[in-house]
Amino acid sequence: MADVMDYASAGVDIDLEGAAVASLISSLTKSVRAKGTKGAPVDLPGGFGGLIEFGDVYLAMATDGVGSKLQIASAINKWDGVGIDCIAMNVNDLLCVGAEPLAFVDYIAVPKPDPIIHGAIGQSLSLGCEQARVTLAGGETASLPGIVTEVDLSGTALGWVPKGETITGEHLAVGDVLIGLPSSGIHSNGFSLVRKILEYAQVKYDDPIPFNPNTECRTIPQYDGKSLTVGDLVLHPTRIYCQPCVDLFEAARHDATPFSINDIHGICHVTGGGLSNLLRLHSTLGWHIHAPLPVLPEFEWLQSIGGVDTKEMYRTFNMGIGMILAVKNEVATVICDWLCNHVEGCAIIGSVVDNGHRVTHAIEGVEFSHY
Amino acid sequence: MADVMDYASAGVDIDLEGAAVASLISSLTKSVRAKGTKGAPVDLPGGFGGLIEFGDVYLAMATDGVGSKLQIASAINKWDGVGIDCIAMNVNDLLCVGAEPLAFVDYIAVPKPDPIIHGAIGQSLSLGCEQARVTLAGGETASLPGIVTEVDLSGTALGWVPKGETITGEHLAVGDVLIGLPSSGIHSNGFSLVRKILEYAQVKYDDPIPFNPNTECRTIPQYDGKSLTVGDLVLHPTRIYCQPCVDLFEAARHDATPFSINDIHGICHVTGGGLSNLLRLHSTLGWHIHAPLPVLPEFEWLQSIGGVDTKEMYRTFNMGIGMILAVKNEVATVICDWLCNHVEGCAIIGSVVDNGHRVTHAIEGVEFSHY
Repeated sequence: MADVMDYASAGVDIDLEGAAVASLISSLTKSVRAKGTKGAPVDLPGGFGGLIEFGDVYLAMATDGVGSKLQIASAINKWDGVGIDCIAMNVNDLLCVGAEPLAFVDYIAVPKPDPIIHGAIGQSLSLGCEQARVTLAGGETASLPGIVTEVDLSGTALGWVPKGETITGEHLAVGDVLIGLPSSGIHSNGFSLVRKILEYAQVKYDDPIPFNPNTECRTIPQYDGKSLTVGDLVLHPTRIYCQPCVDLFEAARHDATPFSINDIHGICHVTGGGLSNLLRLHSTLGWHIHAPLPVLPEFEWLQSIGGVDTKEMYRTFNMGIGMILAVKNEVATVICDWLCNHVEGCAIIGSVVDNGHRVTHAIEGVEFSHY
Repeated sequence: MADVMDYASAGVDIDLEGAAVASLISSLTKSVRAKGTKGAPVDLPGGFGGLIEFGDVYLAMATDGVGSKLQIASAINKWDGVGIDCIAMNVNDLLCVGAEPLAFVDYIAVPKPDPIIHGAIGQSLSLGCEQARVTLAGGETASLPGIVTEVDLSGTALGWVPKGETITGEHLAVGDVLIGLPSSGIHSNGFSLVRKILEYAQVKYDDPIPFNPNTECRTIPQYDGKSLTVGDLVLHPTRIYCQPCVDLFEAARHDATPFSINDIHGICHVTGGGLSNLLRLHSTLGWHIHAPLPVLPEFEWLQSIGGVDTKEMYRTFNMGIGMILAVKNEVATVICDWLCNHVEGCAIIGSVVDNGHRVTHAIEGVEFSHY
């Protein structure tokens, strides 16, 4: 089974998706907004998009959806986490360029509006806004019975960053230290594979999970000490990293702090593609994870019941590491200690290395040379 | 047929949609961002959302999708207008609060990525960005075969407005003059009804239209002087009003101009709900349209082949008026002349009146007292 239980055969054609995105991007023309004026695009060396000029600062936009995690929410009619997921996927992306998220707007497409579902999604969005410290600045509900068969939820986050304080990857260097921030679970990627594994293993969403889901880095409130359903586990919402990251940026700006914002060379949100996301931060440097954070138990369980190849697991899921900061060697310990005071379980997990543009890992065979 | 050929029976339950949105809104909690700090929500008297504080200025966000117009684009595989529609729906909303749109991000959900469709949508988005003078700051393509059966396209626009220059409706007064800006066609609302009418009348998208679509206010480039298909007509993209409106705001800021930004009391984007959108600008005042802009020929044709009630047409479609500015009586002519120099066919169409919170019209029976 292992040879077919992968992301591609779960219905996601990554190559085709890449070709479609490349086709869209190649058809785009240059912005009419001239460099140096409000709204002009910012061409960062790290290749990150989403920044525009706005006087003394940059504004940043990120747009993303919850994706096929929503199909499980629909299947078991559980909506209390998906708003948090939606906000997390966007604000965590903004943090990667050093931006502070400020506001969020949601887009909900439904075959038919349902006040109960909308109310639950609203509550979840509110929780997400609170955790991300952003204002919900608007939203749209579209009834599209001819286009969507179930709820689709996406959104856009707006942030800002002072000029000169963007985190771009351009200062990354061999010897930089990688700090891992623990994930809260599967987050919002890889759900086509999750669904395929559960189906293959004939596990139902209301089955109890056969393990204790809580770890020192993650507590699931629905777990009563004895049992938790599979649905509650896999839908556990994505961790929002605004509090540690924005506060870290803020701390770094103070003269008294022994590290500066320029010591943070790169930030990686570990989304679809898993650790291969690191490759996006720099075009030539390599990354070695020598001491990964503990793998959350659901990943081990999913791998075992699905017979999934280890490399495929690391290419699809975050495996316990939700965000990675690449920082200057000399201040790595102090930054890691600072982060540990804000998020339990942060640790130094690896370093930037000079062995080609690839990610290597303590587990032999977990190696990626393209995103 | 007239009694059933309406928007609700075309599959859109406006009441249910309203209940769902109300349920979502009632579940929202207060922003954690304190008044006077970056990101704090701006509580405008006019009740418009989407504004947040940002130092000396406000930032504005608008999010919306193209809606069921996309089903016709899918049916005839024609994508060169939908990107413009997507940008138009959002930037035109930003203009209503006096904001200048700066940037845009798109969200495309597909059952399966298609490089050709994505390339065409990219080109269309580029054209829209050029017309709206905004930067495309990012985007997301989601493959969701379990959620969408056809392309869904939405997006978010970001704009800004100096503090003290927002257009809120709070200064609206009896005697204010309404200036209409011509629409370019059906724009992006009412397509469930369009599809129902065409199906009822057994008209196919590749049938030729039985009239000349061009008017003094609108030219359709695909019309060769003799024929145009129904598909090309109904998919003609939404007009983007950035150029006239942002330039008008800019002109109003100059001392030499005989009108000021404070003379523009309200702006209404005529979207789903048609002229009833005016009711959103003020909670008690009324609106009378005594001299509407010419009705575009497709509206007359759709009404006739579908046997649609006149009031229903005005409640569903823009009927030729895409945006309405409510301005101070004394400067109405000069503002209207200014606009006519930028957009052919602008005219004074009505006034703010004191006869209850309702919209009345030169056509008896076209009257709305709720949005």
